[in-house]
Amino acid sequence: MAKSTITLASGHEMPLVGFGLWKVPKETTADTVYNAIKAGYRLFDGAYDYQNEREAGEGIRRAISDGLVTREEIFITTKLWNNYHRREHALAMARKQNEAWGLGYIDLYLIHFPVALEYIPAAELEFPAWWMDKERSVVKTDRVPIRETWEALESVVDEGIVRSIGVSNFQTQSLYDILTYNRRPISGLQIEHHPYLVQRDLVAMAQEKGIAITAYSSFGPQSFLELPAVFSEKAKGISLLFDNEVIQKLSAKYAVTPAQVLLRWATQRGIAVIPKSNNPARLAQNLDVLGFDLTQDEIESINALDKGLRFNDPGFYLPNHPLRIF
Amino acid sequence: MAKSTITLASGHEMPLVGFGLWKVPKETTADTVYNAIKAGYRLFDGAYDYQNEREAGEGIRRAISDGLVTREEIFITTKLWNNYHRREHALAMARKQNEAWGLGYIDLYLIHFPVALEYIPAAELEFPAWWMDKERSVVKTDRVPIRETWEALESVVDEGIVRSIGVSNFQTQSLYDILTYNRRPISGLQIEHHPYLVQRDLVAMAQEKGIAITAYSSFGPQSFLELPAVFSEKAKGISLLFDNEVIQKLSAKYAVTPAQVLLRWATQRGIAVIPKSNNPARLAQNLDVLGFDLTQDEIESINALDKGLRFNDPGFYLPNHPLRIF
Repeated sequence: MAKSTITLASGHEMPLVGFGLWKVPKETTADTVYNAIKAGYRLFDGAYDYQNEREAGEGIRRAISDGLVTREEIFITTKLWNNYHRREHALAMARKQNEAWGLGYIDLYLIHFPVALEYIPAAELEFPAWWMDKERSVVKTDRVPIRETWEALESVVDEGIVRSIGVSNFQTQSLYDILTYNRRPISGLQIEHHPYLVQRDLVAMAQEKGIAITAYSSFGPQSFLELPAVFSEKAKGISLLFDNEVIQKLSAKYAVTPAQVLLRWATQRGIAVIPKSNNPARLAQNLDVLGFDLTQDEIESINALDKGLRFNDPGFYLPNHPLRIF
Repeated sequence: MAKSTITLASGHEMPLVGFGLWKVPKETTADTVYNAIKAGYRLFDGAYDYQNEREAGEGIRRAISDGLVTREEIFITTKLWNNYHRREHALAMARKQNEAWGLGYIDLYLIHFPVALEYIPAAELEFPAWWMDKERSVVKTDRVPIRETWEALESVVDEGIVRSIGVSNFQTQSLYDILTYNRRPISGLQIEHHPYLVQRDLVAMAQEKGIAITAYSSFGPQSFLELPAVFSEKAKGISLLFDNEVIQKLSAKYAVTPAQVLLRWATQRGIAVIPKSNNPARLAQNLDVLGFDLTQDEIESINALDKGLRFNDPGFYLPNHPLRIF
């Protein structure tokens, strides 16, 4: 069996396969998380934006008190939302999110997107967060340098409420700039990553710099079809990766599901994945993606499906007020 | 006739068509520039890296003293090289480059690439600059934040030796970050831009923010074929834009050269261009690209040639020590 964790630059271990909490309804989150732990999941990937941190924490605490796992065996990732990039807001938000999880500390805390939006008090922020101001009329960026936010994240590591820090949706230029002033390592980079959006250079650069990558939307268009039209529109016209000939062939060869092929393509290259499923059988399958190895040629044949096709792009789903960050 | 200049965010006017000094041999630069002024060129695009600033300045000064133009009619752009990103080096380099041109001031001064390399004294820097250390064994980045360099550029505007400042080869995330701390506007963004590399989002974002774009390598692969193998290799396998059916058809329709179609596609969208040519007839043709208008459908038909294909990528031409900035 392949190694099931990756050592972060901070020295902590992160599981290579986790459970993504995006789009998991608040009402069912605690049970979903509890059952995922039963199925063997140890990493949970959340965000302030997903609005289910408290419930995820409940599920984990229940599993701990039932003796299924210890806190040390669990790894939680969560993210700072765009409206809280100012130092004082980032500090307050990290503390608030840590309390919501109720597990003593956050394992990995990420800047969710590389852009600061104007502060909106948490009580007034409407979810799902739509990037726009309260009237939903316009995207209001704020003049908060990435450095201010990054240094706030370093401070919450000092405080002991966060163990490792990183970023999400950043490109190489943004990473290079952080590397000129950081005093703690960039432990993680979370990005959209699937065979239609391989981002070879970004992946190679991050790995060269010891930044562990977590892929989101590993199934490509599939991950967006369940969302409201503004997110799913772009995905609708695209052929599913599950139906792709290359993926199907490998699925048959290794007697695994197409989803398992896609997840193994990532994990075999040291990229963590965070699928989610409400189906218990698929939940187990998605976790079981370290037990076979693709050949180098097979990995390349999947890489060759690259179309540079990004689905999670605010520049696309905010058509009237595009925020072009990619 | 369409407007032949673009108003920069600094308030100064920049010609939409200029002459690019990249790859112009030092020995012929002064005459080439003098003749380009005779042919009507007013903007000259240089860089420390091109190693012909002194000679370009000579050509311009000769044209001024011969009464062909005044200093105020001329617009010079030049760029700070990667090894001089530290504040003290950037200040010294701007002064040194301004003296080399010998025209009293630089019109537009750009950060050439969004990455700082270790300082190498100018006398020891080998040209063409190869991104690597003196032994040419490795790329050595330096921990200089973009902010330090940007603020040095703001200072040379304060000093009066530079009128407008900007960046080159930056992506949107990098621009958004500068916009959180700049006290002077980002007046210019110079990028590789041709129908195989349209970068729609980057162009749209920059134009929304009032950042004037200058396209380099407007002819795509053609611009790289004359270079050493490491630069030209990628271009060799690609069909030339001059031979492309869409471009050929428009060339016939408007009775202009394919080069003029490519340049008009940019200038009509408010993007400045900086072709170069050693051929007097082509020199004149390249300047004459404001006198016809493509239809919106024709512009879109050119946009549709986009392949996301970048030729000027250090990650590609430094295969052993890739610097992945795109």
